[in-house]
Amino acid sequence: MAKRLLGKEVNQALNKRITENVNLLQNQGITPKLAIIRVGENPGDISYEKGATKRCQTLGVACEKILLSSDSTQEELLKVIDRLNKDDEIHGVLLLRPLPKHLNQEQIENALVPEKDVDCMTDSSMTGVFTGKSIGFPPCTAQACMEILDHYKIDCTGKRAVIVGRSLVVGKPTAMMLLSKNATVTICHTKTKDMASVIREADIVIVAAGRPGVVDAECLRPGQIVIDVGINVDQDGKLCGDVDFSQAETIVDAITPVPGGVGSVTTSVSVSHVVEAAVKKAGLQ
Amino acid sequence: MAKRLLGKEVNQALNKRITENVNLLQNQGITPKLAIIRVGENPGDISYEKGATKRCQTLGVACEKILLSSDSTQEELLKVIDRLNKDDEIHGVLLLRPLPKHLNQEQIENALVPEKDVDCMTDSSMTGVFTGKSIGFPPCTAQACMEILDHYKIDCTGKRAVIVGRSLVVGKPTAMMLLSKNATVTICHTKTKDMASVIREADIVIVAAGRPGVVDAECLRPGQIVIDVGINVDQDGKLCGDVDFSQAETIVDAITPVPGGVGSVTTSVSVSHVVEAAVKKAGLQ
Repeated sequence: MAKRLLGKEVNQALNKRITENVNLLQNQGITPKLAIIRVGENPGDISYEKGATKRCQTLGVACEKILLSSDSTQEELLKVIDRLNKDDEIHGVLLLRPLPKHLNQEQIENALVPEKDVDCMTDSSMTGVFTGKSIGFPPCTAQACMEILDHYKIDCTGKRAVIVGRSLVVGKPTAMMLLSKNATVTICHTKTKDMASVIREADIVIVAAGRPGVVDAECLRPGQIVIDVGINVDQDGKLCGDVDFSQAETIVDAITPVPGGVGSVTTSVSVSHVVEAAVKKAGLQ
Repeated sequence: MAKRLLGKEVNQALNKRITENVNLLQNQGITPKLAIIRVGENPGDISYEKGATKRCQTLGVACEKILLSSDSTQEELLKVIDRLNKDDEIHGVLLLRPLPKHLNQEQIENALVPEKDVDCMTDSSMTGVFTGKSIGFPPCTAQACMEILDHYKIDCTGKRAVIVGRSLVVGKPTAMMLLSKNATVTICHTKTKDMASVIREADIVIVAAGRPGVVDAECLRPGQIVIDVGINVDQDGKLCGDVDFSQAETIVDAITPVPGGVGSVTTSVSVSHVVEAAVKKAGLQ
């Protein structure tokens, strides 16, 4: 049976790092602070907000919630972002998305200064990921995958990594991050032919397709490490990933479960970005 | 013997497109104009400048050369860029690089407005390539590879494309552009294990390693299309690519020669970007 790569084990290590930095900041009289902007009452947004708020509290990070009605205007949103940009006590900003359709989301995203962009929503932060320059932070989910590999001491150098999915939020940035870890990186997507044989070539498989069961026994072989980024709801109403877990765990060497894998690390990563932003701002790093 | 994918054939088609746009502009009383900035007397820069100037003349694109001494200051360079940003008659700017070491090249590069950044030297233009947003232009060399594939009607959808080299100028942007053409894309580099077998998987091979002979018979198989981005000088002082051409042309289906392949298309692409910039500015597109 495959070893389970558990989010909670990764989080323990991550939280230790976060706590050390929070202590460092508190010694300087600084409390790291996250602002969460939610527009409307989307249940997914509310659930994510609850998780992030709780994690912040546990770790000594302050949290300001900015709740706006779903008919807020572009100007109102931009004014909020502008205020947060200027507020010296706010170190990171999470904007829950997608925004209601009447808003120009791209303009609002790019109004945030990259130093406070803890989930890579600005073009500048994305440039940092692509070029390797130190601008902003990488997307939390992509970095969560790297944190899992790092925690379990999975060396990527010279390994074949295959990413299923080419999204700007996960697929592409994860490819760039694996490349900088010296993996040989392949990106698959819906137009890939014979995806199963491409995935079988991989030593490390990152699955971010957004479709349950897209990776099953046919795609897998012994020796592989599988990171499942997908979060879906199956026919029985239960959470599941993009990988057929029951098939996969009898074949591969190691796999992240869903729930309990990448998703839970993602929240910790976003908090760690807030703390890192505060540390950088204070010149402690 | 492999079919030769010839730069001059691609250029004929490209130049036709350029000329059509130049005529369109001239009907509006507009002459597209490129500014080339050269700092110092590097022979490679001078040679590139000559080629670009000549190509501009042939195609009806005006060209302003700004020649600065190698001891120019950061402020002087920034002042030049600022002037070119504001000059309504300049549609594109090429800064020959690398700059002398005493200059902060990154700051100078990013001082240019992306609309005039015809060879993707700003972070904003690079973001455009990574995200697919319409910001600036892609790097000329990466686009030259795409122009060659397009001209010879090589459909990338579902094909396996392998890129040798992970540079920000060629490898990474080419990967993104092939991905948007629906290829399954693999990026190899110096840390890749058994590169020969990875390259043999490819239907389309883009070689941008900067080392002669990095791709030879062992890496190749019948049916492949090979685009050689390398420009090196061999032991006899002759130009050669990264691919062992004499071995390759007996095996693969099609290959670009060096010289006469990608390099010559790159110059045309840079001119086409100037003209496109002028067309966009005039609202003709």
